[in-house]
Amino acid sequence: MTSRPLITLLTDFGAGSGYPAQVKAVLLSALPDTQLVDVSHEVPAFDVLAGALLLEACAPRFPQHTVHLAVVDPGVGTARRALAVADAAGRRFVGPDNGLFTPFLDGARVRELVAGHGPVPRPASNTFHGRDLFAPVAAFLAGGGDLTALGPEVTDPVRLPWPRAERRGSEVQGECLAADAFGNVITSITEDDLAPLPSPLPAGAGRGRRDPSTLSPTGGEGQGEGAVPSVEVAGAAARFVLTYGEGRPGELLAIVGSSGRLELAVREGSAAARLGAFRGAPVRVRLL
Amino acid sequence: MTSRPLITLLTDFGAGSGYPAQVKAVLLSALPDTQLVDVSHEVPAFDVLAGALLLEACAPRFPQHTVHLAVVDPGVGTARRALAVADAAGRRFVGPDNGLFTPFLDGARVRELVAGHGPVPRPASNTFHGRDLFAPVAAFLAGGGDLTALGPEVTDPVRLPWPRAERRGSEVQGECLAADAFGNVITSITEDDLAPLPSPLPAGAGRGRRDPSTLSPTGGEGQGEGAVPSVEVAGAAARFVLTYGEGRPGELLAIVGSSGRLELAVREGSAAARLGAFRGAPVRVRLL
Amino acid sequence: MTSRPLITLLTDFGAGSGYPAQVKAVLLSALPDTQLVDVSHEVPAFDVLAGALLLEACAPRFPQHTVHLAVVDPGVGTARRALAVADAAGRRFVGPDNGLFTPFLDGARVRELVAGHGPVPRPASNTFHGRDLFAPVAAFLAGGGDLTALGPEVTDPVRLPWPRAERRGSEVQGECLAADAFGNVITSITEDDLAPLPSPLPAGAGRGRRDPSTLSPTGGEGQGEGAVPSVEVAGAAARFVLTYGEGRPGELLAIVGSSGRLELAVREGSAAARLGAFRGAPVRVRLL
Repeated sequence: MTSRPLITLLTDFGAGSGYPAQVKAVLLSALPDTQLVDVSHEVPAFDVLAGALLLEACAPRFPQHTVHLAVVDPGVGTARRALAVADAAGRRFVGPDNGLFTPFLDGARVRELVAGHGPVPRPASNTFHGRDLFAPVAAFLAGGGDLTALGPEVTDPVRLPWPRAERRGSEVQGECLAADAFGNVITSITEDDLAPLPSPLPAGAGRGRRDPSTLSPTGGEGQGEGAVPSVEVAGAAARFVLTYGEGRPGELLAIVGSSGRLELAVREGSAAARLGAFRGAPVRVRLL
Repeated sequence: MTSRPLITLLTDFGAGSGYPAQVKAVLLSALPDTQLVDVSHEVPAFDVLAGALLLEACAPRFPQHTVHLAVVDPGVGTARRALAVADAAGRRFVGPDNGLFTPFLDGARVRELVAGHGPVPRPASNTFHGRDLFAPVAAFLAGGGDLTALGPEVTDPVRLPWPRAERRGSEVQGECLAADAFGNVITSITEDDLAPLPSPLPAGAGRGRRDPSTLSPTGGEGQGEGAVPSVEVAGAAARFVLTYGEGRPGELLAIVGSSGRLELAVREGSAAARLGAFRGAPVRVRLL
Repeated sequence: MTSRPLITLLTDFGAGSGYPAQVKAVLLSALPDTQLVDVSHEVPAFDVLAGALLLEACAPRFPQHTVHLAVVDPGVGTARRALAVADAAGRRFVGPDNGLFTPFLDGARVRELVAGHGPVPRPASNTFHGRDLFAPVAAFLAGGGDLTALGPEVTDPVRLPWPRAERRGSEVQGECLAADAFGNVITSITEDDLAPLPSPLPAGAGRGRRDPSTLSPTGGEGQGEGAVPSVEVAGAAARFVLTYGEGRPGELLAIVGSSGRLELAVREGSAAARLGAFRGAPVRVRLL
């Protein structure tokens, strides 16, 4: 281990609740020189899908040796298993077996944490496994410990039904998933869902290679002009743009956001507030 | 000093206010390699008891060499004293003399911070002693400085009336104290208050040794069955359980939480919202 | 570079949004041993002035080698320039050219970040330059890189109209600017605006040198007694005090706060709530 240990934390505890601090106390007691990064402690309570989407957006950007401790855990204290995961890219995760790690399970090695097995403690509480079970294991892994020491292999980790987009001819259909602090609403439609069809993105376009100059903003009615897709969400038109700045105040926009997902946005406003109860609301993109 | 200096921060400043950052700027200017951990900056404004309860839950879990900087300080700039505390276990605290350190005062050594005395600065503001007085002192202590350099001994630090439980025969009486981000409400009744009497906890049960399998969930009316206690809060029945997962949606639960206190909870809901103005509301546990 | 690299972050992303974590992932991937401090992620969305005021209050307190990464960026993805700034005191800043660095521009060296120029990456998104453009540049500078490697000199960085106070005889006129988490409202009137005129501050008084004992609290009507100034905000009287503790519950107070600005406060209450839509509300101080 040449780098300093690095552990991220993602929970629904609330940053100011004292619970993240108790987790950090355990981590720093076990591994004093660890660098700690909060991904979020404001995941909506018990919202495993929202936590999984945040992990998907954030974890891959950290150095590979990082251990990601993630606790959104409505089943704490019940028979749900506890897991350590090493995904196909070598990233490691510790947390409950409830689907929170769904985006990373393809090709992953997964172990069950068995209380009292090797370095796995018997948790001191039925209600706070983040502190009493997951933190000691995360510190063990971040300190160079091996996944195989933790418990038996798991071949059937819980997976969330993962929201994806469907293509029908020149139309891509998806749904609204979650909102960020700006009120931008991310959808199940990714850049890849849009890319291979006729689209405004140049052929072979990947993240980082789009050139705003190849596209001009569309008209205000969300009607495609030339290669610009038209977007409809919950029956309302959204205008496809490349930057928030193209929007007019109050206008509903559709944009490929920083996580590579199609997002709905209102310039200097909230698409979430505009759309109301948005989770699951249908999104259609017509690629003309 | 072999370990890296470690300082925790607990305030009612608001994490995004810039005030915690100014405190950290002072700490890192004085002691650049310090590790900083936020316990909370969301203590309800001026709520010294809530801050003390958070400190009680969090500080003992950190390594012993940690210095805990805590500022919930309605009397800043008035004649209230400023303190450094070393408790019986060797943990150190810096902050105002208003009861914030009540849980740690038994057997503690306490010193008053005298402006201009040794390493104690004259604060540059009347309104921000967290930055101008407590931070320099915390850095001094975390860097290996001695408590006795700070000012005279204090033998009468302010103590909050500390909410405890009372036993009357087979009944334990306490009160509601504070809520966390999930809406779980902690009470003045601790596991120790429940343990020595006939109770659902196995004889000799301590934290970490409870075994959920020894108890079966109770009926829905909060009536004890066998060794299960019955719990009443503000006149309403709460069902005693060992894990949140045993609750039915919407049901008021009583559970020994991760801090060793009896808590009131609603599964995937908020007991705080259910109970309304809960602080001080009476809680009765009948141990049958 | 003898000290550990130190980078602060100020954004309007929301601490729990996952966006600050993605920025940190980039910073730690580039410069693993960097110390990271959050100044705020709760700047009101797109409020460049609020961000600039927070930076003004916080950045000067950090060690000089700190790099300040600041992103309040309604124009992300548009033609607005991206900047690196080294101010007259040697502090360095990275972020959008929209006025966010106004308090530091006098005598500063400013460079435009040109995508693909030297260490400046081509941003992978049109919507998240904090992660894709500013973070790599901040890490470059914090690691010892030179400002001149980033792009051409900028002689006309965007400046916000900076709210200042005006003096007319014995009256100082200013306006309300922003509120903190306690509901204290800071104004455009600084201690320096009040000091050179007849005032309650002793001659030559500077921050850290005021002595509360030289002033007695005023009467309750905000009328000056002796050397105490009278303060009026949005037509209502505020009583000038030296510490919050002098206030009576519910009373509107005026106080020189920890940032050296005149603030409006309500003891254990919220001046922001009391004043309503306060930004721009006029404040008058009569120095008698």
